Amino acid sequence: MVLLSGGLDSATVLAIARAEGLDCYALTVDYGQRHHAELAAARRTALYLGAAAHRVIDVDLRSFGGSALTDSIPVPHPDSAEDIGRSIPSTYVPARNTILLSLALAWAEVLEVNDIYIGANARDYSGYPDCRPEYLEAFEKLARLATKASVEGGREFRVRAPIIDLTKAETISKGMELGVNFGLTHSCYDPAPDGRACGICDACILRRQGFQQAGIDDPTEYVG
Amino acid sequence: MVLLSGGLDSATVLAIARAEGLDCYALTVDYGQRHHAELAAARRTALYLGAAAHRVIDVDLRSFGGSALTDSIPVPHPDSAEDIGRSIPSTYVPARNTILLSLALAWAEVLEVNDIYIGANARDYSGYPDCRPEYLEAFEKLARLATKASVEGGREFRVRAPIIDLTKAETISKGMELGVNFGLTHSCYDPAPDGRACGICDACILRRQGFQQAGIDDPTEYVG
Repeated sequence: MVLLSGGLDSATVLAIARAEGLDCYALTVDYGQRHHAELAAARRTALYLGAAAHRVIDVDLRSFGGSALTDSIPVPHPDSAEDIGRSIPSTYVPARNTILLSLALAWAEVLEVNDIYIGANARDYSGYPDCRPEYLEAFEKLARLATKASVEGGREFRVRAPIIDLTKAETISKGMELGVNFGLTHSCYDPAPDGRACGICDACILRRQGFQQAGIDDPTEYVG
Repeated sequence: MVLLSGGLDSATVLAIARAEGLDCYALTVDYGQRHHAELAAARRTALYLGAAAHRVIDVDLRSFGGSALTDSIPVPHPDSAEDIGRSIPSTYVPARNTILLSLALAWAEVLEVNDIYIGANARDYSGYPDCRPEYLEAFEKLARLATKASVEGGREFRVRAPIIDLTKAETISKGMELGVNFGLTHSCYDPAPDGRACGICDACILRRQGFQQAGIDDPTEYVG
């Protein structure tokens, strides 16, 4: 089970799981995100990397609001990568990874799959609390108490976060090595109507700097 | 924040929270349950008990399947209440409470609410793993690591399960005392097209026996 957003982190994670020889079930959640383009990117990436199945499930988090990604709050434009991660930004979506992981757990239980892969990253990241290792460990503990498969069947769910300690540049290098087509992925939180990346949100700044530091051509078209 | 299904347990829990003098935000999840009638019951109950707001959010768990409540698997008909809870029945919905609690956590964070009430019950119950105290404690731990409100704001989310140790009869007595209108609630997993309760599923058997043991008239119309 791989949580696939359409961004470069989860694409690399899918490639890692595929390289481990696993049949991968990719799950994408349409939560009403402003950057809806990532859903199409997830579809392309699942196909390109040979996922056994890909499903998109709708949970409209816009009805709760509270985030620049689901509400009319503006997406922030930090001055540089150094300004990212000092505090939790307005692009934080309340309880997002808890919701994503709980949906992945449901499908994993039905499919009789043990391992849930997530592209959480605690290094070149935006300071989201639900990307930290202690959070992911707590979810793993919860999963082992939560399900029929674990309680009656003894199944030990695992939350796998293979890029948790990588820099963005290292993630990109790893993905290239494993055949990810980054031209199919989408990172920008606030794309232009023509689909080009804004170039000035957290996600664009981290993506751009990652390609530069990795010495790899960035296939993204940026507005600015 | 009160997770309100439309059944009698969560109606009683809402009444308990109201009796504590709290403004209550009721959250109902439309997960594609076979007993869709519970959504209307939740609406009526939220209104009747004076919830400050009530929201219904859609998450279509039918796309994962794996449960008699969301799939074409038949609803079981146990011979008696003693046969319920010996093993986890097919009405178990994979990871349901984890999904419900994660959505409640998201809305609670946005509303700046600390307490999440759930009608989980570990006594006269169907043996669901995600109704046990150790599961709810694990979710509370997770919630305190998962959110901006807890990490930056020091908010300590609490999962409150005030009827966890009550028998069904005790829950019904408590609800009556606090003004619940059980005629507005719905328990049956497999209602007839005319809306009457089947009378023979786990939920009907436990409900019926609960009213009998509490010595209270059951307002439900049963088919059989």
